[in-house]
Amino acid sequence: MSKDYKQYFADAVQNVRDEGRYRIFRDIRRKKGEFPKATWFREGLEEKEITVWCSNDYLGMGQMECIVEAVKSAVDTAGTGSGGTRNISGTTRYHVQLESELAQLHKKQKALVLTSGYVANEATLGVMSKILPNLVIFSDEKNHASMISGIQRARCQKVIFAHNNLADLEAKLKSVPLDQPKMIAFESVYSMDADIAPIEEICDLADKYNALTYIDEVHAVGMYGETGGGVTEERNLAHRVDIIQGTLAKAYGMIGGYVAADEIIIDAIRSMASGFIFTTSIPPSTAAGALRSVKVLKLTPEKRESLHERAKMLKARLRQAGYDFVDGPTHIVPLMVGDPVKCQAISDKLIEEFGIYAQPINYPTVPRGEERLRFTPGPLHTDEMMDELMSALEVVWEEFELKREKVA
Amino acid sequence: MSKDYKQYFADAVQNVRDEGRYRIFRDIRRKKGEFPKATWFREGLEEKEITVWCSNDYLGMGQMECIVEAVKSAVDTAGTGSGGTRNISGTTRYHVQLESELAQLHKKQKALVLTSGYVANEATLGVMSKILPNLVIFSDEKNHASMISGIQRARCQKVIFAHNNLADLEAKLKSVPLDQPKMIAFESVYSMDADIAPIEEICDLADKYNALTYIDEVHAVGMYGETGGGVTEERNLAHRVDIIQGTLAKAYGMIGGYVAADEIIIDAIRSMASGFIFTTSIPPSTAAGALRSVKVLKLTPEKRESLHERAKMLKARLRQAGYDFVDGPTHIVPLMVGDPVKCQAISDKLIEEFGIYAQPINYPTVPRGEERLRFTPGPLHTDEMMDELMSALEVVWEEFELKREKVA
Repeated sequence: MSKDYKQYFADAVQNVRDEGRYRIFRDIRRKKGEFPKATWFREGLEEKEITVWCSNDYLGMGQMECIVEAVKSAVDTAGTGSGGTRNISGTTRYHVQLESELAQLHKKQKALVLTSGYVANEATLGVMSKILPNLVIFSDEKNHASMISGIQRARCQKVIFAHNNLADLEAKLKSVPLDQPKMIAFESVYSMDADIAPIEEICDLADKYNALTYIDEVHAVGMYGETGGGVTEERNLAHRVDIIQGTLAKAYGMIGGYVAADEIIIDAIRSMASGFIFTTSIPPSTAAGALRSVKVLKLTPEKRESLHERAKMLKARLRQAGYDFVDGPTHIVPLMVGDPVKCQAISDKLIEEFGIYAQPINYPTVPRGEERLRFTPGPLHTDEMMDELMSALEVVWEEFELKREKVA
Repeated sequence: MSKDYKQYFADAVQNVRDEGRYRIFRDIRRKKGEFPKATWFREGLEEKEITVWCSNDYLGMGQMECIVEAVKSAVDTAGTGSGGTRNISGTTRYHVQLESELAQLHKKQKALVLTSGYVANEATLGVMSKILPNLVIFSDEKNHASMISGIQRARCQKVIFAHNNLADLEAKLKSVPLDQPKMIAFESVYSMDADIAPIEEICDLADKYNALTYIDEVHAVGMYGETGGGVTEERNLAHRVDIIQGTLAKAYGMIGGYVAADEIIIDAIRSMASGFIFTTSIPPSTAAGALRSVKVLKLTPEKRESLHERAKMLKARLRQAGYDFVDGPTHIVPLMVGDPVKCQAISDKLIEEFGIYAQPINYPTVPRGEERLRFTPGPLHTDEMMDELMSALEVVWEEFELKREKVA
């Protein structure tokens, strides 16, 4: 590599640093049976015990004994990797059963498992323009990077509408001829803003303007709805959304993503999406673990109740203490800092001095000036852990001179 | 969904059918300890025992006891999923150690693990144009779908050169100003054609015309080179290729992909590639299994020798019997059929009547008229299994009236 090339790469990294978004990954190891406790490894320093407050294993399913056993049992039966793409020896009993279970979960005819939620969004949205001539995709401005990537891949007309803004969406839908294919792509729970889309109203607009609907429920499946079918189940709207996308990597505690829809839609995606066709399928044991996790969460609403109780508790305590946080309807609790350098420094101090791990969320994940710490309390976060968290926040908020409202 | 939309999806699927590339996935379950034996599940029919001849678990590592134990042990220690993106609680001891091992394997400063080989290609190639201004990517015409996808994502100038054709590559390199950033993207072992790129000569051209080099070694890592570092290791060329991409899903028997390169290159990819940043990291147990697999294969050249001996044996037998196959330098054995309908029918007959599973490879994976069965013999395919295969081929070749050369 010539000196010039080295410089290009160095400049690119420097640019990331200058924007305050250079990331140093924290090297941790969770402890099964003690989660959210984990061990933090630091070069040249002693290991440190920490409490994880930012995991997306929202319900702690990733360390539930029956899930672990399902994974181990499948590895013992069928080995580790699948050994092939879905078409070339990589479809197994486990994949077939998991897809059937996921279709049932969302009351759809079929489901299709892809290697990640990211890939599920990218591959599915990306192939839509090959199926629907002159497609226009209407995309919520806060949609996840994977949806944006899929829509770019589709290379069709894209119309961005203001976040959860029905008037803006309708105005934009109206501007496209009624018979031109349209798709509205949005999320149910927005992970960084902790709010929820007006799904029913969006479906009403879709009906009115003849658009398909695509919803990303990755931060909702397993956690909302009577059986964990997401916000679409909770609001009895699954039948009104054409494609429901979800993940196995968050509440279900594994890895992988999926889409659920009518059989003909799934068959088209299955047959045409490059990101599905040309990649090794998820390991049989991953499918087995996910299958068990979906089944367990169908039958244990108490885990969901506990999740939401814990989130409400944390929000109540933050409210009481006058913190500026997003007081939304979801289980996610973003605590506003509003400065990338402070946000990083606070996160560093929390983990180093208090053993509290909450990753700073900076640009480009959130807009500049809206930097935050994102807490994800779950059923395994005890009252004592919350006490520790509140005491630590008290100290660092003072040290960094961040405002808190006076509360009577 | 309106009737019109349904029709679009139905038309898309019909089009796939018309092109003879509608795929029905075979539902199988491998048997650990008995691989390449597996069970085939068919709706409404009895289960059937089969021999898998088309797995990319080339060395059977996916069912080696010590790999299985590494996976199970990590699940017992840390649970199943990682619970987060690499930046948000999803970097673990296992990921860090695996990346260190992979960097060593390829004698590079750093390595970066992504969720699949597909994603590794797509995310890495896709971000290059953001780093290198006015980049031109020179891409071998037979490059894998994931590389094509990455190059499309880069939205930079793309120049396709004839497969493994140095004269064509040079003519095209020459046509671009010397100081304009260039990258040559190619594979070492081409999976469907079973040939190998002239890596040294491509590197010579890269030096002459000031281009970076990017090699996909997914069908080579673990299987070529003294320690499994791929063809670049076998030919002592790793230091001459800027970015080496590989997979954990084939010879290493797990799932996941990676790139290895200079530290500054990896840091730029890590900091900028959307497909790396915004997705849940591979499970700790996947990283643990892969780590063990890489370590084991470093020290067991006999597995590689056995792989190549088995491939040579199958090719010798096919040659002796006058079959039209790709008699190349690799471990992959494509047997030519040249007709999509026959190719599918032969595959069906082989599995249904003889319990021999070899997937037909049709368009678009290979050009029309070059349809083939792709065999991947490995250390666990016995002489008896080869006898069975040869007898079965004898029968079906006659039935389908396919030509064989008269051999003295």
